[in-house]
Amino acid sequence: MKTADPELMRAINRYHVIDAIRRDGPIARVEIVERTELSPATVSAITGALIEEGLVDVLRVAAGENGARGRPRVLLGLNGAAFHVVGVKLSAQRISITITDARGEALASLVLPVQLARQSTEVIADLIEDGVRGCVQDARLSMSQISGIGIGLPGVIDGVSGISHWSPVLGPRAEPFGQAVERRLGIRTLIENDANLVALAEHWFGYGRGLDSFAVVTVENTIGMGLIVDGRLYRGAHGVGPELGHVKMEAGGAPCRCGQTGCLEAYASDWGVLQMAEQLGLADGAMGDPGRRMAQLVRQAQQGDAALAQLFERAGGMLGLAIANIANLLNPPRIILTGEGLRAGDLLRRPLLAAVEANVLPTLREAMQITFHPWGDEMWARGAAVIVLRRIYEAPWNEALKNRPEEDVWMRSRSG
Amino acid sequence: MKTADPELMRAINRYHVIDAIRRDGPIARVEIVERTELSPATVSAITGALIEEGLVDVLRVAAGENGARGRPRVLLGLNGAAFHVVGVKLSAQRISITITDARGEALASLVLPVQLARQSTEVIADLIEDGVRGCVQDARLSMSQISGIGIGLPGVIDGVSGISHWSPVLGPRAEPFGQAVERRLGIRTLIENDANLVALAEHWFGYGRGLDSFAVVTVENTIGMGLIVDGRLYRGAHGVGPELGHVKMEAGGAPCRCGQTGCLEAYASDWGVLQMAEQLGLADGAMGDPGRRMAQLVRQAQQGDAALAQLFERAGGMLGLAIANIANLLNPPRIILTGEGLRAGDLLRRPLLAAVEANVLPTLREAMQITFHPWGDEMWARGAAVIVLRRIYEAPWNEALKNRPEEDVWMRSRSG
Repeated sequence: MKTADPELMRAINRYHVIDAIRRDGPIARVEIVERTELSPATVSAITGALIEEGLVDVLRVAAGENGARGRPRVLLGLNGAAFHVVGVKLSAQRISITITDARGEALASLVLPVQLARQSTEVIADLIEDGVRGCVQDARLSMSQISGIGIGLPGVIDGVSGISHWSPVLGPRAEPFGQAVERRLGIRTLIENDANLVALAEHWFGYGRGLDSFAVVTVENTIGMGLIVDGRLYRGAHGVGPELGHVKMEAGGAPCRCGQTGCLEAYASDWGVLQMAEQLGLADGAMGDPGRRMAQLVRQAQQGDAALAQLFERAGGMLGLAIANIANLLNPPRIILTGEGLRAGDLLRRPLLAAVEANVLPTLREAMQITFHPWGDEMWARGAAVIVLRRIYEAPWNEALKNRPEEDVWMRSRSG
Repeated sequence: MKTADPELMRAINRYHVIDAIRRDGPIARVEIVERTELSPATVSAITGALIEEGLVDVLRVAAGENGARGRPRVLLGLNGAAFHVVGVKLSAQRISITITDARGEALASLVLPVQLARQSTEVIADLIEDGVRGCVQDARLSMSQISGIGIGLPGVIDGVSGISHWSPVLGPRAEPFGQAVERRLGIRTLIENDANLVALAEHWFGYGRGLDSFAVVTVENTIGMGLIVDGRLYRGAHGVGPELGHVKMEAGGAPCRCGQTGCLEAYASDWGVLQMAEQLGLADGAMGDPGRRMAQLVRQAQQGDAALAQLFERAGGMLGLAIANIANLLNPPRIILTGEGLRAGDLLRRPLLAAVEANVLPTLREAMQITFHPWGDEMWARGAAVIVLRRIYEAPWNEALKNRPEEDVWMRSRSG
């Protein structure tokens, strides 16, 4: 719990005004007053400062234009050109990079096919450096115009300190990975669990827009979860987010690559389904992109392979049970499902929804929505950019920044 | 997310000062400045107002006294006599009532043995009315000196609207139970899930003191959970807290009284263990206080009944698995276990800790503590009083109060 001080209060109010403009802009001052419940004087002072800083643009709408009646209205919108950020998503088989403007609109993107597991942390940081420099060039920007970099990756990631405690792409040792990239590019870099960045992106662009609390479940080669509570990412001890993939679905269940047993990931992730298919002789153990191999398995199941269909049935049932337990335990008003794992379509979806129906307490069921939202890697990278955008707009509210004020240099490159 | 306004800021600062005095009082102003990180001027203004309102007492300590050196120090403490509240705990077999002062110290207590399940909501509200009147008399107070009533009960309780959606003691229909008691006594009444009140009480008096985030798991005839995040009770949609008892431990598992299967409560609550013991012919199905029957089963198991010991082994293993999953999902720095179910001692504790060890992700394990804290019913009732104390000290910060400002009448009886 933070003690309130005037500076903090101004930062919170400023963020709420920016957030209203971002969500609903172009927007008139009077509407900002309505949305934020701030006084007209406070809103005028804040928007005046934001216009002066160049973060907000003034759009004049003439009478009659855009359906506006009577006298001309002055509408405000975020100034996309105010600054630029980079979003990077690391997954098992590729590095995705996106440059966005201050509104989160993508200006340039790049996908590098790399099997990350066989590269050292140093090589991965090198590849990110080269990729970011190339992508910034593609966007016709210079590096001095980039205000921050956000990197999303699977694993147990401390988004506050920038340390990867364990990651399938960086390995089992604690790595100060944010610093490794920051050193190379000289630009402030944040790292975050990839499910958390999806949650932030849903909050900015997707089905979480307008919600104060919701959960996101990501089904890919790993299974992750991001939880937004009162508009902020939930973090446990040491800044780590929910590890849904390693929640145990049954005592002494299927063996997981984490060394424990019964993990959701062992049943319902791409990795888990492939493992089981191999053990049952339904898929060969050949190397290759798990995504492509999974797409092949889905086709076979859809064409009538009953044994494979059964595997997806079980994966969906386990996912549904896990989602029901999130609902029983945390009862968020909405749970959003996303990730490549959704490619299985109804094979997964039908048993998933049946398991939710059977296992959520009836009194909680009506208060909950389940939304499917398939995303591509570019969207994940855009989500990584949101990590930085949000931190810039929130500063100095954000307690992580408060912990290292000497590094609060977000804005330095805005004039660059 | 609340927009900050000056009034809200003052309320937050006021609460932080009160909270520092409550936690660490008697305390000097300079120490309050340190704890809260507020300016000395702000702390002086707030403490001055609190002294004037009669909420805070000035204790002068002469030089040399209590280890103090040099010039006399002025210490501040909460004024217990400032106002009084009532805490009520409903459980299957009894109604426990406690009157506390403004510091949460118990002045009088009363336990009514009543089998609540066979009484109507109206009769239960009548019994609470009579019990509260009697208990207030025992404390040598008049009803006009009571500022509020907090009632804790098991079930799906909306602590914001005061509605019991489902409760083993009030039944399956939605009941505006808070209002039923409020009407009888003419005193503002809050109801809350009983695990939530235990979480608040741990935060005030117990092992949660000084922690911003932690979880409490209660093992009784039902199984509950309370979650404190950033110093506040976590609530999902519709104000309902975590329903740990109905988290599913295996697909298609043991049948539960909620109508679903595989619920933690079916394996590890007093109700679940008794059910299983009856089914295996290890306990007769006679009526009677489940607490007493459970104590008997524990004795038999401790004296060498292997089949019964096995039941506790399974209950402990399932509890440990559920606690491991809370750690994997939410990773709170501490999980506190409490409730009558702990009477089984090492029969439960040993398999519980083994299951936690085997199922919490190794990277999360070191960041987590498990604490056992056996409590009596009087402590639960004292926790119910904390619901009210906290709301009084927080007002007008609390958003629930903001939602019904016309009822913000906490302080009316302070001068009574």
